Amino acid sequence: MKDLHLLSARRAAAAVASKEILSVELVEACLDRIDLRESSVNAWACIDRETVLREAIARDREPIRGPLHGVPIGVKDVFDTQDLPTEYGSSIYRSHQPQRDAASVAMLRRAGGIILGKTVTTEFALYRPGPTKNPHNLLHTPGGSSSGSAAAVADFHVPIALGTQTSGSIIRPAAFCGVVGYKPSFNTFIPDGLKPLAASLDTVGMIARSVDDLSFLSSVLQGNQEAIALSVPSKPRIGLCRTPYWNSAQSDGQDALLGTAERLANSGFAIEELALPDWFESLSEVHSQIMAYEIARNLIYESEGSRQDMLHERTHQLIEDGWDMSHETYLAARSAVRRAQSEFTAACQGLDAIMVPAAPGEAPLLSSTGDPVFNRVWTLLGVPAVTLPVTLSSKGLPLGVQFVGPIDSDRTLLSLCRHIEEALGSIKR
Amino acid sequence: MKDLHLLSARRAAAAVASKEILSVELVEACLDRIDLRESSVNAWACIDRETVLREAIARDREPIRGPLHGVPIGVKDVFDTQDLPTEYGSSIYRSHQPQRDAASVAMLRRAGGIILGKTVTTEFALYRPGPTKNPHNLLHTPGGSSSGSAAAVADFHVPIALGTQTSGSIIRPAAFCGVVGYKPSFNTFIPDGLKPLAASLDTVGMIARSVDDLSFLSSVLQGNQEAIALSVPSKPRIGLCRTPYWNSAQSDGQDALLGTAERLANSGFAIEELALPDWFESLSEVHSQIMAYEIARNLIYESEGSRQDMLHERTHQLIEDGWDMSHETYLAARSAVRRAQSEFTAACQGLDAIMVPAAPGEAPLLSSTGDPVFNRVWTLLGVPAVTLPVTLSSKGLPLGVQFVGPIDSDRTLLSLCRHIEEALGSIKR
Repeated sequence: MKDLHLLSARRAAAAVASKEILSVELVEACLDRIDLRESSVNAWACIDRETVLREAIARDREPIRGPLHGVPIGVKDVFDTQDLPTEYGSSIYRSHQPQRDAASVAMLRRAGGIILGKTVTTEFALYRPGPTKNPHNLLHTPGGSSSGSAAAVADFHVPIALGTQTSGSIIRPAAFCGVVGYKPSFNTFIPDGLKPLAASLDTVGMIARSVDDLSFLSSVLQGNQEAIALSVPSKPRIGLCRTPYWNSAQSDGQDALLGTAERLANSGFAIEELALPDWFESLSEVHSQIMAYEIARNLIYESEGSRQDMLHERTHQLIEDGWDMSHETYLAARSAVRRAQSEFTAACQGLDAIMVPAAPGEAPLLSSTGDPVFNRVWTLLGVPAVTLPVTLSSKGLPLGVQFVGPIDSDRTLLSLCRHIEEALGSIKR
Repeated sequence: MKDLHLLSARRAAAAVASKEILSVELVEACLDRIDLRESSVNAWACIDRETVLREAIARDREPIRGPLHGVPIGVKDVFDTQDLPTEYGSSIYRSHQPQRDAASVAMLRRAGGIILGKTVTTEFALYRPGPTKNPHNLLHTPGGSSSGSAAAVADFHVPIALGTQTSGSIIRPAAFCGVVGYKPSFNTFIPDGLKPLAASLDTVGMIARSVDDLSFLSSVLQGNQEAIALSVPSKPRIGLCRTPYWNSAQSDGQDALLGTAERLANSGFAIEELALPDWFESLSEVHSQIMAYEIARNLIYESEGSRQDMLHERTHQLIEDGWDMSHETYLAARSAVRRAQSEFTAACQGLDAIMVPAAPGEAPLLSSTGDPVFNRVWTLLGVPAVTLPVTLSSKGLPLGVQFVGPIDSDRTLLSLCRHIEEALGSIKR
């Protein structure tokens, strides 16, 4: 077998388990790919090659630990790792070494997975971009904050990577990099050992190159021995939703959504227009309020003494906004979320999912990581979202479409998205 | 002024601010009380007297930092502290020294508060009792898991202490120790820096000797400069709710609730019987499922290698239960919570709060920390709960009554409870 770095996680795990390949061969193929590309893409905050190769050799010599045995994974540098520095994208935490693994990282290791390294995050998963470039065009952003995870998976450094989303930090970079991103229902995967940003919003998720790998990694992160069986809904019904932010989408983003709806309708999906309540437009502001209020309190240590001088200007501003906000405003925002959750559930009655833009359009140039306007509401409501790459812009940059389901409908959504992925065929790079 | 250890936090803060007393005098009075009583009560996991006295002297020499300036506080030993070991009640973490303060601890310090020490918790806030005794009768439990916080406040070691509740870990010990406990609406105070047990349930709260001190400390923990104004509802309406677990209450617990309802009715409160939907009885099991599922994953590090030998037998069992549970069962439990939240909101229409037992009865003997049967549902629903001491059992042990409000009605609930506290008068010890 050659080009092992191109394998999916599930295929790679099967090949290692059957001794068709060695874990160390797989890991070396990924490291070779990184050697070739990393100086351009800058997806990695930290890789310890010696440890990684030693672990792969150990996996090859021992019985199968679990479903991920011998497979390398990228981990966003906001998850604590006991053997690798964890810097949260901030110079405040330069060379910071946690004492133990985050729960999700421990679950990956227990399943036999090999943490290949830590992927670049923006500062505290917020605004200050890291050095990562979009592998499709190095002048463009990979998106953020899970910048390194998206770029590493898209550029075939690893088959899968962990990410987190508080606004749009998984879906947006996955869409910009032309890969598959999954932000689960709130609290589907355990947030222990994650640097908290806003506890009401922070969601552990993942980036892969296929929906099948999302369900593969989901079963590992749930820690259940049984694999998750995905069944295709017999007559999938999807709501085509322009969202209250349609005017924020560029024409390529709008065309990607509408064109995909048409292709799906032609493939036998029932597509119907869905309008969310008008007042949902205010949810973007509600999200910002909850985020600012909670971030100010979570980053209290980082904003004291000389540490505050190491924070990005926009992070400072966000913290100030959070302290300026009254508790009444915060409570009103929480109340709006409960109302919106109930109305969203009602709006989705009879639908398997809705489809919305994943981002306003193609990845912008490097100075920003793009706008989470099409992501905030779903994070706020705690509902599951998957982005699939659907086409390329005129510049050759990927465009994604986001599928969103009711709360805790994650398995149905993943089944549906696998069906959609097949219907759409693979996107030419 | 003498007997400074008897002061409320608000009164103590005012006295320090006006230079009526020195912070160091206040702290010395608390330490003297601890010297007198700690060998019997064992409320403290760790106290660093030198640091505490040095901090008090520093507070006395500098401008007022905030509303808690110079006031000592107890902190349950599940919150990380950068200057004190944090052992989570487990020998796995003997002498464990976190690198920074939990957000709540940082907020207390920013407000000028002095962390007097860490209070005893059961192992990981679960089953294995610590050495703490009930100050009302040293043969009886103080309750758990916030055992040391409740005993320390009840025994006048500190005016206020932080606790956490995942099942009944604030309300139950507060009731057993004859003090006031407050479990806020879910995510009211920031959980950063707390050892996670079950992220869907873990709630930061507090124990004090008066409702007024609960609102005082709440404003500090919210980090808002303005004090929280409490207004008394003009015609308080309270639902008297036996709950589906009434048969689990002992006769002294039942009498405490019914007798208090009668006293409140005689004081002009509108008391009406309220029955929750029958199916709410199953919520105790739903709570146990969510807790087991999440705890198994959060304690993955602690249950690996030789560390697992240091876990209590019941903790082991809980972790096994959590791994044995299917993801479907977990999702069904989450779905039941959403339904129950909606039905509880409907049931509370027109009421300011409901009143329920705080515990089955008086504190049992030391071998257990008591039964959280009357606490689980409110933690599960994320609604605010306050326990007030209302009477003494025939053995002279305190009995509490718990007041529960709709989600995010915390300020109304605190106002109401202050009114109730006045109506009931102080309990003879």
